[in-house]
Amino acid sequence: MRTITYGGAVSLDGFLTGPKGSLDWLYYSKDVHDVMAAYWKKIDTVLMGRKTYDVSAAAGGAAKKPKKTRSAKRVVPPKRTYVFSRTLKSIADPGVELVPGDAVEFVRSLKRRPGREICLMGGGELAQSLLGAGLVDEVRLNIHPVLLGSGIPAFRDPGHRLRLALFECRRIEGGCILAGYKVLPS
Amino acid sequence: MRTITYGGAVSLDGFLTGPKGSLDWLYYSKDVHDVMAAYWKKIDTVLMGRKTYDVSAAAGGAAKKPKKTRSAKRVVPPKRTYVFSRTLKSIADPGVELVPGDAVEFVRSLKRRPGREICLMGGGELAQSLLGAGLVDEVRLNIHPVLLGSGIPAFRDPGHRLRLALFECRRIEGGCILAGYKVLPS
Repeated sequence: MRTITYGGAVSLDGFLTGPKGSLDWLYYSKDVHDVMAAYWKKIDTVLMGRKTYDVSAAAGGAAKKPKKTRSAKRVVPPKRTYVFSRTLKSIADPGVELVPGDAVEFVRSLKRRPGREICLMGGGELAQSLLGAGLVDEVRLNIHPVLLGSGIPAFRDPGHRLRLALFECRRIEGGCILAGYKVLPS
Repeated sequence: MRTITYGGAVSLDGFLTGPKGSLDWLYYSKDVHDVMAAYWKKIDTVLMGRKTYDVSAAAGGAAKKPKKTRSAKRVVPPKRTYVFSRTLKSIADPGVELVPGDAVEFVRSLKRRPGREICLMGGGELAQSLLGAGLVDEVRLNIHPVLLGSGIPAFRDPGHRLRLALFECRRIEGGCILAGYKVLPS
C-alpha cells in the first residue's frame, strides 16, 4: 500500500492561510527547501481539492516543484496530480486529472496501485474526508511562530479521534517546528 | 512588568479538551511533572475564566499544585487566583478572588504591581481578550499527538495577527512536543 502524507505549513493556531488567503507569513528557508526537495523525490502523485488547485494553478502549476538543484533535477520523477471536484467540468492542464466522483473510494483504490508515495495537499476539506476514512498514513507540519486568528484550518473534524505517533520533531530556521507523525490505526 | 504566560496541553488540532470536555487523552509524564514543578515556583498568581474555574474547582482546587516533592514543598509560594466572570456573584473558596469587571483593565493594572510571574489558564475566551490586548508575554504549549476533531480551542481570533518567537522546542515523553514562544510586540 502506498503511503499518503498530509501536511504543509501551518500557523500555531492551525491555519493554512490567514484571513483573505494571506500567505505572507510563510518563511521559506534553506531548511524548508532541503526537506521539500527530499520529499519530492519520494512521491509521484499529488492529491488536492478544487480550492487548493485554484490557488496552486494561479501560482504557476498544479504540482509545482521546489526550485530545482542540479542533483535533484536528475531524480525527480514526473508527477500525476488528481484534483477532486464536484463542480469543475474539465481541467485543461496536462498531467492533471479531474476526479468528479467519490474521493474516498478513488483514493482507496489508488493506494493499492503500484507507485511511489502520495502527497495530499491542504485545504482541509479533502484531508478531513481522507483522514476520517483512515486513508492518511502520515501528517507532517511546519509549524510557524504566528497566531493568524482566522483563515483556512488545516484540520476539520474527521468525526472521531485520531491517535498519532511522533517520529520527527526539530526546530528549523525562522523559529519553525518541523513535526512528523504516523497516523495510528483507529 | 510581570510576565504573563498562557499555555497548556493541546491536541495537534489545537483543542484544550475534546468533545464533551474529554481530557482522557492527556499524557502526564515525569517530563510534564518536572516542567510544571519548575514553572510553579516562578508564579504567585493564576488567572482563569469562569468555565475553567468550574472544571478546576471540580478537580479539587482553583490553583491546584502539581504533586509535591519534598524539595518543591519548601519553595512553592502561596498562589492568588483571580476568576473572571460576569455571572458569578461570589466565590467561597479562600485564596480565590472574583473579578466581575473588565478583565483587560484589571490585568493591565495587575501586571504593574510587584510580584512574581502570572499564569493564565486555558479556556480560550479570557486568553483571547488578553492576547488581543497585548497583555500576554509568553505562550507555552504541550502539543499532544492526537487529533480530537472538536472541543474547546486553545486559540480564538484575537482580531489581529500575533507574531511569536520560538525559544523552546523539545520532544518529551509520550510523543509530546513542548513549545515555548515569546509574544512579539504588534
